[in-house]
Amino acid sequence: MTNQLPLVSVPTLLINTSQCIQNIRKIHNKAIKGSVIFRPHFKTHQSEVIGHLFKQEGIACITVSSLRMAAEFAQQGWRDIAVAFPVNILEMDVINDLAAKITLSLLLESKETAEYISQRLQHKVQVYVKIDTGYHRTGINASSVDEIGALLDFITRLPNIECKGFLAHAGHSYKAHGSEELERIYSYTLAQLKLLQAQFSAKYPNLIISIGDTPTCSITKSFEGADEIRPGNFVYYDATQLFIGSCRLNQIAAFMACPVVAKHEERKELVIYGGAVHFSKDLLNHPVYGACYGLLAEWTNEGLKLVEECFVKSLSQEHGILSASVSYLDTKKPGDIIYVIPVHSCLTAHLMKADTLYF
Amino acid sequence: MTNQLPLVSVPTLLINTSQCIQNIRKIHNKAIKGSVIFRPHFKTHQSEVIGHLFKQEGIACITVSSLRMAAEFAQQGWRDIAVAFPVNILEMDVINDLAAKITLSLLLESKETAEYISQRLQHKVQVYVKIDTGYHRTGINASSVDEIGALLDFITRLPNIECKGFLAHAGHSYKAHGSEELERIYSYTLAQLKLLQAQFSAKYPNLIISIGDTPTCSITKSFEGADEIRPGNFVYYDATQLFIGSCRLNQIAAFMACPVVAKHEERKELVIYGGAVHFSKDLLNHPVYGACYGLLAEWTNEGLKLVEECFVKSLSQEHGILSASVSYLDTKKPGDIIYVIPVHSCLTAHLMKADTLYF
Repeated sequence: MTNQLPLVSVPTLLINTSQCIQNIRKIHNKAIKGSVIFRPHFKTHQSEVIGHLFKQEGIACITVSSLRMAAEFAQQGWRDIAVAFPVNILEMDVINDLAAKITLSLLLESKETAEYISQRLQHKVQVYVKIDTGYHRTGINASSVDEIGALLDFITRLPNIECKGFLAHAGHSYKAHGSEELERIYSYTLAQLKLLQAQFSAKYPNLIISIGDTPTCSITKSFEGADEIRPGNFVYYDATQLFIGSCRLNQIAAFMACPVVAKHEERKELVIYGGAVHFSKDLLNHPVYGACYGLLAEWTNEGLKLVEECFVKSLSQEHGILSASVSYLDTKKPGDIIYVIPVHSCLTAHLMKADTLYF
Repeated sequence: MTNQLPLVSVPTLLINTSQCIQNIRKIHNKAIKGSVIFRPHFKTHQSEVIGHLFKQEGIACITVSSLRMAAEFAQQGWRDIAVAFPVNILEMDVINDLAAKITLSLLLESKETAEYISQRLQHKVQVYVKIDTGYHRTGINASSVDEIGALLDFITRLPNIECKGFLAHAGHSYKAHGSEELERIYSYTLAQLKLLQAQFSAKYPNLIISIGDTPTCSITKSFEGADEIRPGNFVYYDATQLFIGSCRLNQIAAFMACPVVAKHEERKELVIYGGAVHFSKDLLNHPVYGACYGLLAEWTNEGLKLVEECFVKSLSQEHGILSASVSYLDTKKPGDIIYVIPVHSCLTAHLMKADTLYF
């Protein structure tokens, strides 16, 4: 028997905490088995409640995506925080505040930035060298061994900076489908970093490898060879992860509850209170529906079930337009609540921070 | 000589208030000339500062897109607020709270909703019948005269509800280009509503016509024939409006300031601190750049200037990737601030509420 859902009157993000705990334990157990540090990314939930669930599972070190988020979680008692974003040198005051209180890890990819922060640091920080293993968002190309070596030599001589190792985010896994492709991306990312680790092991024997996007971390059977993993989205999952193949439907722990405000039978649509300011505008190219901003679901005794032939077809600022089957449409009227699995739970959770209920 | 821009260290939305005033005056003067009520949509800015600018220009009645936003602006002293969103019957408590304090206007499109709220209203509210003039998001089709007549007859008999007239949002204007197409959409929307007004004038002689999206309101030479206009975006404008042709570059009054955090010369890219949680993920299909999440600009003595061959090509949660020309790239390094015209200023302003500076 599943829990009752909370009653809502405005768009609300509902979080299934027992499923979150299961999602955390699944990755955590795999991390323990592979003897890697589990440093979950907190940008997905940005939530004190979910942070507490991680703490209860024995997690002590975390990842965030901004210094502001680091300050927020430091305030909530976290003492080992990595900011997995190229360091913003305009925030030296925040960096120094944090470094005075916690073990702070930053991301570097250039000598200029390294030198700049080193000269202004009042306390020691740890740094990762950011490596690009194929996503091409940021970082030094894994194959640019000379450049990486020169940066390592430069950093390790600077005061107040301690180099931890190499960090990569294989974000191209979000374009993959199925476990085979994900396993391949995972292995290749790890292999590139292992090569680097080996290349510099004589000079720098303690450099670690930090990896971990949710798709590959969910699928790969073992983390052996890595030293640290940093997935984030896995705590909630979403429609995108379902389509990549990183999760099953019943692992999705976050969904939106939205009031129906109008019904248009002639074009088989429901208008919901729930728009771009609630869901964000990330979209999924669904094989059947095309552009899809959310999947319709129902909460049953067995948990979440997808409603066939129903999806969010467009979003404006506050309106969502739900394309619905005739049979579904017949059961709904203004004032009813419908449930939608978001396309990207990180962005939805960010927008819904003040309107989240945990059950 | 233009104003100095405020200094920033994190992604910040900069608002050019003197340009806002000019944008307000331009539409306001046209409204005065056409003898129509100017009821600007406040969903774009959601800002007390900008609200104050409108107040100083003599505006007394406003539009918002949620009851929550209505409550916020009622708190700031606004006494005549229309909620241009199908009424959410689950928020009767908010409706009654507001209706006790202010002149509240709501949107109706079904008898069931009308009856439901009428039975629970403790104070009088005004309502518009929501008409669909071609956008097909919500509302009753303008051609469904019998259905509209039946709803009017039903509503006008209900207690606590006073029917003001017809309201339409010609949101399909956002797919238009150039003044000719916009003028055509404006005229056709107005003509459909004038037909309805005439159809029911004997029985209901005082029904007004409320229209007004930013593209058509910016372009149309005269508002004659309408009774009320409700544009919102015009106070800031954005890259989308520039491409529709509703504004000129120097009318854009909102832009983002973002720190550069990394540089990738080999692929001519800058990584900026500024992502989907700052800009939103609305995109523009640019004729040259393709998918574009923002246009790069510079602040000069003559105001905003576009930087050629430079645009935001992708956004993740906190990262923005800027595709840049070689000459631009040569002038920038981590720690510099770059300026971006957002694709959709309403969504950006919503996300940046706590990080907006006015100059």
